Amino acid sequence: MTNATNRRIVLASRPHGAPTQENFRLEEVTKPTPKEGEMLLRTVYLSLDPYMRGRMSDAESYADPVAIDDVMVGGTVCQVEASNHPDYEAGEWVLAYTVGWQDYAISTGEMVIKLGKEPQNPSYALGVAGMPGFTAYMGLLDIGQPKPGETIVVAAATGPVGATVGQIGKIKGCRVVGIAGGEEKCRYAKEVLGFDECIDHRAEDFAEQLKNACDKGIDVYFENVGGKVFEAVMPLLNTNARIPLCGLISQYNATELPEGTDHLPLLMGKLLTKRIKVQGFIIFDDYGHRYGEFAQDINQWLAEGKIQYREHLVQGLDNAPEAFIGLLEGKNFGKLVVQINDPL
Amino acid sequence: MTNATNRRIVLASRPHGAPTQENFRLEEVTKPTPKEGEMLLRTVYLSLDPYMRGRMSDAESYADPVAIDDVMVGGTVCQVEASNHPDYEAGEWVLAYTVGWQDYAISTGEMVIKLGKEPQNPSYALGVAGMPGFTAYMGLLDIGQPKPGETIVVAAATGPVGATVGQIGKIKGCRVVGIAGGEEKCRYAKEVLGFDECIDHRAEDFAEQLKNACDKGIDVYFENVGGKVFEAVMPLLNTNARIPLCGLISQYNATELPEGTDHLPLLMGKLLTKRIKVQGFIIFDDYGHRYGEFAQDINQWLAEGKIQYREHLVQGLDNAPEAFIGLLEGKNFGKLVVQINDPL
Repeated sequence: MTNATNRRIVLASRPHGAPTQENFRLEEVTKPTPKEGEMLLRTVYLSLDPYMRGRMSDAESYADPVAIDDVMVGGTVCQVEASNHPDYEAGEWVLAYTVGWQDYAISTGEMVIKLGKEPQNPSYALGVAGMPGFTAYMGLLDIGQPKPGETIVVAAATGPVGATVGQIGKIKGCRVVGIAGGEEKCRYAKEVLGFDECIDHRAEDFAEQLKNACDKGIDVYFENVGGKVFEAVMPLLNTNARIPLCGLISQYNATELPEGTDHLPLLMGKLLTKRIKVQGFIIFDDYGHRYGEFAQDINQWLAEGKIQYREHLVQGLDNAPEAFIGLLEGKNFGKLVVQINDPL
Repeated sequence: MTNATNRRIVLASRPHGAPTQENFRLEEVTKPTPKEGEMLLRTVYLSLDPYMRGRMSDAESYADPVAIDDVMVGGTVCQVEASNHPDYEAGEWVLAYTVGWQDYAISTGEMVIKLGKEPQNPSYALGVAGMPGFTAYMGLLDIGQPKPGETIVVAAATGPVGATVGQIGKIKGCRVVGIAGGEEKCRYAKEVLGFDECIDHRAEDFAEQLKNACDKGIDVYFENVGGKVFEAVMPLLNTNARIPLCGLISQYNATELPEGTDHLPLLMGKLLTKRIKVQGFIIFDDYGHRYGEFAQDINQWLAEGKIQYREHLVQGLDNAPEAFIGLLEGKNFGKLVVQINDPL
């Protein structure tokens, strides 16, 4: 199916707190035509990721915000529909970071990675074999430095980052304790992903259960959620623990700092007395030069069946906003991907 | 002067908040006699350092607390008064970590470092050429990784750690901004230590002054105080900033966490979006194996006049508690050392 219009979702307004449908607007514009040296990309899969919440805000951050009325940003797996570019031909699959939430975009090849003509699982480039997997790999191995026998804790254990962190941790000989929302996800983390334990953060005695699961304390806490999970983790951190800080999904929708007790001195005191390292990182900025290492390892592990991967596929661009809103609430189960168009 | 009694200061009770004189007790006991393989150490200089506040508490920390009625711990520079130990002879100077706040102690040579027979500045082993200097050196260079042209901020700028951090920063080609309490200390940091700027944290517009002094932001914040200084530093941290976390003197006397706004999510968000590293360290636990590097560099810099060093000398063991209480309030000016006895 091809058509002459380009559907796109733009940022209509900035959210205050959790995003709502009103913050997005679906538009139809004319499908663009590639000039000499350009190609037309047709989006097949759109990745939805928590970091996008940050781009909807104009608070200072590591990347510029999406401007009002601009197309929402995001990684996409596309096919070249028409090419006037010498290096690309029609039908090829690519991973692109300049397309975002829309059917079509013109590309000069910048920020485009070739995926071949008949890739086995093209959408994996948005997940385990792409940015989320790369994030898990470098954060865990370079910042976390896990040693065999150590205990790793990771939340959002069935998401594309958490699931990869845990499975790499098992490959490296560690005890892996996941945290996830609900019994089904926890069972999946243990039975399919091979985690040693997985604790439901919705349980009333969550902190107690986590403590019991980490009877030798925590050596690496891969931080992607923040909030009450981090509060439960803090007392369990061992001497010389490492905290790769990759995300804080629980606080992305917060409009102001919580009132009550100031836990900052508690954290700093813990970091000091336990000689702990916390290190924030943004995967391509900090580790772009090491993508090759990751690609080699992850493809080998996937081929050997050592890494399992689950996608949560949503159909249709018009369902992207709802799916994204649900992502921030943990409603997805696996890597959230929107299929926008059929393959050519 | 030698005598037959051993004066010592023991921990009488644990402080609640700031320590008071009542938490210490001066005792006189019989001067011990060394057996075969032992020596008698006579304390000349006792080091007073902020970490000792932690040892007075029984809250979980990196080191065991001092037991009630036990001698307060601390680094000392001693002379061997009598020796039945084959490797030591009377009159030799040593740095010892097993003596603490008292005139005399028996030693088997464990945790003792030889300083020679006629060291030029024996007390320097408690400061710039010892633990505080080593802390400054490894924290700044190994965790902080300063690059020429970057901006380093350090508080307690005229103390033995802060002064050394700043001066090593200058040697490494950085812009160094100190923070100290009062105009006199700030002037000293600039005029004698060679800091580019030094801000008085008592000034009402302290945060504003710090911001102006760091017009290119902060690349390395050497954390030894915490509290309001850290609050003023946080918004100024650059992308990829490093925070060696060596101490938190402003919160050592706190009996509970402050009420009000919870700044923990703010800190974590900052660490994430700016890709910042915070790393706590305990000098001998983390870097003991690298003491040689430090000793070589610091002695060379001292010999070349590139590092200035100031001591705040207090006379008499009985004045140690008051001096220590003042240390936690920033009343000292330079490395606080108590001279307990005359040299032999």
